[in-house]
Amino acid sequence: MGSVQDISSKTDGTTTLGQEFTKNVIQSMGPNASPRMREVMSCFIQHIHDFARKCNLTVDEWTAAVKMINWAGQMSDDKRNEGQLMCDILGLESLVDAITYDQALKSGKPVTASAILGPFWRADTPTRPNGANISSDTPEDGQLVYMHGRVTDAESGNPIPNATIDVWQASTNGLYEQQDPNQKEHNLRGKFITDSYGEYSLYCLRPTPYPIPNDGPAGKLLALLDRHEWRPAHIHLIALADGYKPITTQIFDKDSAYLNDDSVFAVKEGLVVSFAERKNDPQASLELAYDVHLGRCI
Amino acid sequence: MGSVQDISSKTDGTTTLGQEFTKNVIQSMGPNASPRMREVMSCFIQHIHDFARKCNLTVDEWTAAVKMINWAGQMSDDKRNEGQLMCDILGLESLVDAITYDQALKSGKPVTASAILGPFWRADTPTRPNGANISSDTPEDGQLVYMHGRVTDAESGNPIPNATIDVWQASTNGLYEQQDPNQKEHNLRGKFITDSYGEYSLYCLRPTPYPIPNDGPAGKLLALLDRHEWRPAHIHLIALADGYKPITTQIFDKDSAYLNDDSVFAVKEGLVVSFAERKNDPQASLELAYDVHLGRCI
Repeated sequence: MGSVQDISSKTDGTTTLGQEFTKNVIQSMGPNASPRMREVMSCFIQHIHDFARKCNLTVDEWTAAVKMINWAGQMSDDKRNEGQLMCDILGLESLVDAITYDQALKSGKPVTASAILGPFWRADTPTRPNGANISSDTPEDGQLVYMHGRVTDAESGNPIPNATIDVWQASTNGLYEQQDPNQKEHNLRGKFITDSYGEYSLYCLRPTPYPIPNDGPAGKLLALLDRHEWRPAHIHLIALADGYKPITTQIFDKDSAYLNDDSVFAVKEGLVVSFAERKNDPQASLELAYDVHLGRCI
Repeated sequence: MGSVQDISSKTDGTTTLGQEFTKNVIQSMGPNASPRMREVMSCFIQHIHDFARKCNLTVDEWTAAVKMINWAGQMSDDKRNEGQLMCDILGLESLVDAITYDQALKSGKPVTASAILGPFWRADTPTRPNGANISSDTPEDGQLVYMHGRVTDAESGNPIPNATIDVWQASTNGLYEQQDPNQKEHNLRGKFITDSYGEYSLYCLRPTPYPIPNDGPAGKLLALLDRHEWRPAHIHLIALADGYKPITTQIFDKDSAYLNDDSVFAVKEGLVVSFAERKNDPQASLELAYDVHLGRCI
């Protein structure tokens, strides 16, 4: 007659706990898994099992984590990516960004610094004419900035016409348009195409620090870790041109708070920029000159 | 004038990549994080960063993983837990179950073997009288089993009256009732209360192997890993009694396929049971005697 107690005495308690178990899970992969899938998932299983063993993760703790992961998915849609945000507050997006950059460097391809995409980029951002103002209803506490620059070939220095600069930023209330019912759709975002001199220009807001959303699992986790939610003031940017490697980056205001304790760890020293005084422009009292140098695809 | 290329040359490429970055993320926790939260999350951040570094995880790969995690949450509700299933196929639930069991052993508390809860348990399972048949509409290919046994105190051997045995199982089509619109609600599940002799009894199906759901990210991941979806035939069981430590377990049919390659790695040798022939019972031709010994809470 089987009984749970009999089972206990018969079972080798170390079998499931030890490296043999992990090896067994890894070796369950079949021959048709791709080599890279096998490499990544073997490494993941090894590390996630080692983590659980190292800190003696309990069923209750694991169950709480699964609930948060499911909650993240349930909050995510085409306008919000809470799974990504969870990774961001643990530094993971910045890390894989750096790894990807490093791998590209090692491959000998010309590359330039990058930063994380973040969860608020939209694929359907409209293209606007150079000189357009992306702030459709500038808030009272907003400062307009004339942002402009040139996109050039990193090796030759030649201008790149028809390059795309895709820009997005939060408003002064800390919200991106998709988070804020009071902002018009696609407010504070736009794509700009460089002219025959490789130049682009737009009006945008001087960015301000803002907290990441705290109504989901990422906010809950920050609270549990006794961490703040704030990000330093920044403008998001993607630069694209045919035949060149795209760049995703963020540029940070050197006068912003939180440069040293960004809640998503995206600040790199070299991504910090200065806003200058601008004269004789009725639209803007500040100016940001920002050039982008793209490396050719090989 | 800032430029992305300038940034590249100014940035120490190793800063974000290295252990200093990970240390910085861990040290961002505030003083009010609980000691256990600090321990678990420090350990998690260290291992997940080490994983990303070790296999040079790229932004594209990480993005694909985030999509799968969000998809898992979006598929989960009160009847389905895809986040849990994702962990299960990587052996994580079995591992934390073993760790929790091991920790309890080390603490000197009397404990008995356990197995994973799985995603199909329901909190609102109805209590049924002893001898009831949980199979409300037995399929043609189903074999009824008379399952019975005694719940006793692990130390004294005395029977425990009023203990609860919570049982659930899939039907012969491989589906639990919440997955199958053709099964009545709460089919093949029930709670049974032990009588004054500590005894419980019920009729259920002889369990059959089934594949875990393959319409979500867990199924997708199994396909990517070239693994099958099958679980060996098993009955789920939770035993509860006032003053005793609860047990969550699964018992496996010794004649089942997949005992050695369970897709969720839940089989322990000691949890394998035999079904015996049963005579003179018009309801069932098979019998399963299964006792449970519970350890007192200390």
